[in-house]
Amino acid sequence: MKKIKMGIVGLGNRGYDLAQTIMFCGDADIVAVCDLYQDRVDRAISIIKEKSGVTATGYLDYNELLSNKDVEAVFISCAWEGHSEVAIAAMNAGKITAMEVGGAYTVQECWDLVRTYEKTKTPFMLMENCCYDKFELLTTALVRAGKLGTVVHCHGAYSHDLRDEILGGNVNRHYRLRNYINRNCENYPTHELGPIAKLLNINRGNKMLSLVSVASKSAGLTEFSETEASPDPSLAGTVFKQGDIVSTVITCEGGETITLTLDTSLPKYYSREFTVRGTKGLANQEADMILIEGDSKTHEYWENCKNTDKYSDYIHDMWKNMTPEEMEMGHGGIDYLEFKAFFKAVREGSEMPIDVYDAASWMCITALSEASIAQGGAPQSIPDFTCGKWLLREPRDVVELPNPNK
Amino acid sequence: MKKIKMGIVGLGNRGYDLAQTIMFCGDADIVAVCDLYQDRVDRAISIIKEKSGVTATGYLDYNELLSNKDVEAVFISCAWEGHSEVAIAAMNAGKITAMEVGGAYTVQECWDLVRTYEKTKTPFMLMENCCYDKFELLTTALVRAGKLGTVVHCHGAYSHDLRDEILGGNVNRHYRLRNYINRNCENYPTHELGPIAKLLNINRGNKMLSLVSVASKSAGLTEFSETEASPDPSLAGTVFKQGDIVSTVITCEGGETITLTLDTSLPKYYSREFTVRGTKGLANQEADMILIEGDSKTHEYWENCKNTDKYSDYIHDMWKNMTPEEMEMGHGGIDYLEFKAFFKAVREGSEMPIDVYDAASWMCITALSEASIAQGGAPQSIPDFTCGKWLLREPRDVVELPNPNK
Repeated sequence: MKKIKMGIVGLGNRGYDLAQTIMFCGDADIVAVCDLYQDRVDRAISIIKEKSGVTATGYLDYNELLSNKDVEAVFISCAWEGHSEVAIAAMNAGKITAMEVGGAYTVQECWDLVRTYEKTKTPFMLMENCCYDKFELLTTALVRAGKLGTVVHCHGAYSHDLRDEILGGNVNRHYRLRNYINRNCENYPTHELGPIAKLLNINRGNKMLSLVSVASKSAGLTEFSETEASPDPSLAGTVFKQGDIVSTVITCEGGETITLTLDTSLPKYYSREFTVRGTKGLANQEADMILIEGDSKTHEYWENCKNTDKYSDYIHDMWKNMTPEEMEMGHGGIDYLEFKAFFKAVREGSEMPIDVYDAASWMCITALSEASIAQGGAPQSIPDFTCGKWLLREPRDVVELPNPNK
Repeated sequence: MKKIKMGIVGLGNRGYDLAQTIMFCGDADIVAVCDLYQDRVDRAISIIKEKSGVTATGYLDYNELLSNKDVEAVFISCAWEGHSEVAIAAMNAGKITAMEVGGAYTVQECWDLVRTYEKTKTPFMLMENCCYDKFELLTTALVRAGKLGTVVHCHGAYSHDLRDEILGGNVNRHYRLRNYINRNCENYPTHELGPIAKLLNINRGNKMLSLVSVASKSAGLTEFSETEASPDPSLAGTVFKQGDIVSTVITCEGGETITLTLDTSLPKYYSREFTVRGTKGLANQEADMILIEGDSKTHEYWENCKNTDKYSDYIHDMWKNMTPEEMEMGHGGIDYLEFKAFFKAVREGSEMPIDVYDAASWMCITALSEASIAQGGAPQSIPDFTCGKWLLREPRDVVELPNPNK
């Protein structure tokens, strides 16, 4: 099997970690790496040499990497502000493009991604690893099999206490710090929205129509910056524009609502709170709970209703067969699965499991939430990046899901 | 101790049950009862005679009950549509007024409640039992002691699967059925909002400023109406205007946000999801969880962080000393506690623990949510029913809360 020749743009912690996931997959050689900072480039070249024996070429300018004719595909894990710019340049250069997740700064950059893809037809995938997580896929399989009835509401959160990371980052080299100081929005929507949008067939028979976003005050980071636990005393008392909790409600053409919570600057355990509510049952990731009428009691206290083991037939084989080594390759296995899916689509020349329309519609939530918050929660229309093709496009999950009754 | 002479207006299931709670309290004799339906009046007179030996006078017209000079106080538990009308008439008649919870149909009726109270000075209490629940009071005590830091966000839900009750009700005699067919709003906000508003000092140094509400489609009741489990086959296929899930976000003057979820027509266990998020910790009723930095791990999966027993010093004595008989008097003890608080204020002539400003600001959420939903989630201003007096009024909890460090 001929290996795909890959370049990586952006070698902060995420890019460095995923370089190792890519090498572990065995589908690609990393032949080129790029970052604004030489120390990161050197560190990446070194680990690539050590783990795969390949000598990657280093760049400080991504345009030069994209001019390297050997490079067939690029993975983009630079700062949030650069994602769309680099992805558009990569597609224009004909490099198969895998883009790390983040939110968009403008709706226009989402249109630019879409139009560039449509013009170049360069394969493009948004690397939303949470679409491959076990519980999300299990729930989607149950929905496809009709077990939850008509889905009317979904909820997700990005509850991740990042105070340490945000305040530990250099304002120039780390995107979160400068974004939290200067912006107020649902700044990281795709981990929670991605699996929900897939489940609700967004851009494939359904569409997100509008949203409202409201932010709480900002107190968590400033208070933390003044404690001894804060990693950088020079940031003590810094004022942040980003509200601690941002609540967003999205309405879909199908009448479903989606609530999203951004929750990254207060003490809490990690959770994505992935929740699906249907006319016959519910799924709730945080409590590892699936309740289906007829199978479970649904009126009692939830600890008495928990019955999730009953649905193991709906768990995808790739999760049943996951090895400990695969699990170690990032976020409990989901990073490995998303890259295997990307490489499979590249090899087969098949449609990407998370395409440019998914990317545009999920990422634009950030820009629209910023506008809504600034307008006191006023509703914002969510563009139809398919220009009507959502009425024709067939539903398609990121993997074929098990249905034991078929 | 001289007993208070009490009348009850509205003798459906709630009024009938609470008549027994009132008698159990031992502070009042029920001397008059009223309902639109004679069978309910007769049933109430019979249980009052049986349990207390008192022969109550029965009425079909509440104005006649209010003309009864023996009656000193009234409890109003009629259909939602009548709450404000009867309460205003009762205050005008000089009868101490206890009003069961529900939402308002208009903002104007909330003003009318306020202005009638201000004109008559007749004592008035909104009977929001959830303000007396153990976890809500424990959390409020922790907040007052500074244990959760600065509070920035609260969440509550009314998750109560009422499909059976809604579809089992006669459209004339039961308010829920006609409301669910004809309206779309956050129709029952006070159970979740009441304890949160008290905790955030709403109308006492803080104020609710605006809200947005968005409703999902309505599918749960119609689908259930077509199953064999539905109690009334004649309602099969009924179309409901009420969305299954209504998501509301409220912004406060203090910068806090409050999210509310109405969730009454899909399968789920009962929950109010009472959640408080602060800069030093969080409280979550559904998971019976209090996490405070320094006391608990907060970065691990929540089942490993649970540490609620540590805070038993903050539990109010009335909960520590609750008897099994008191617990049986409605909703695990909270109905008993709210009526004891009402009778205490009546006897002492002291300020009511949940007053007309609380009632107006909590109830108006229903009318404003209906407007917001109808306008695609457009923000609605929440009136200041105190006309500025919230800047002067001192914070006051429904009971004096324990603070072991003082």
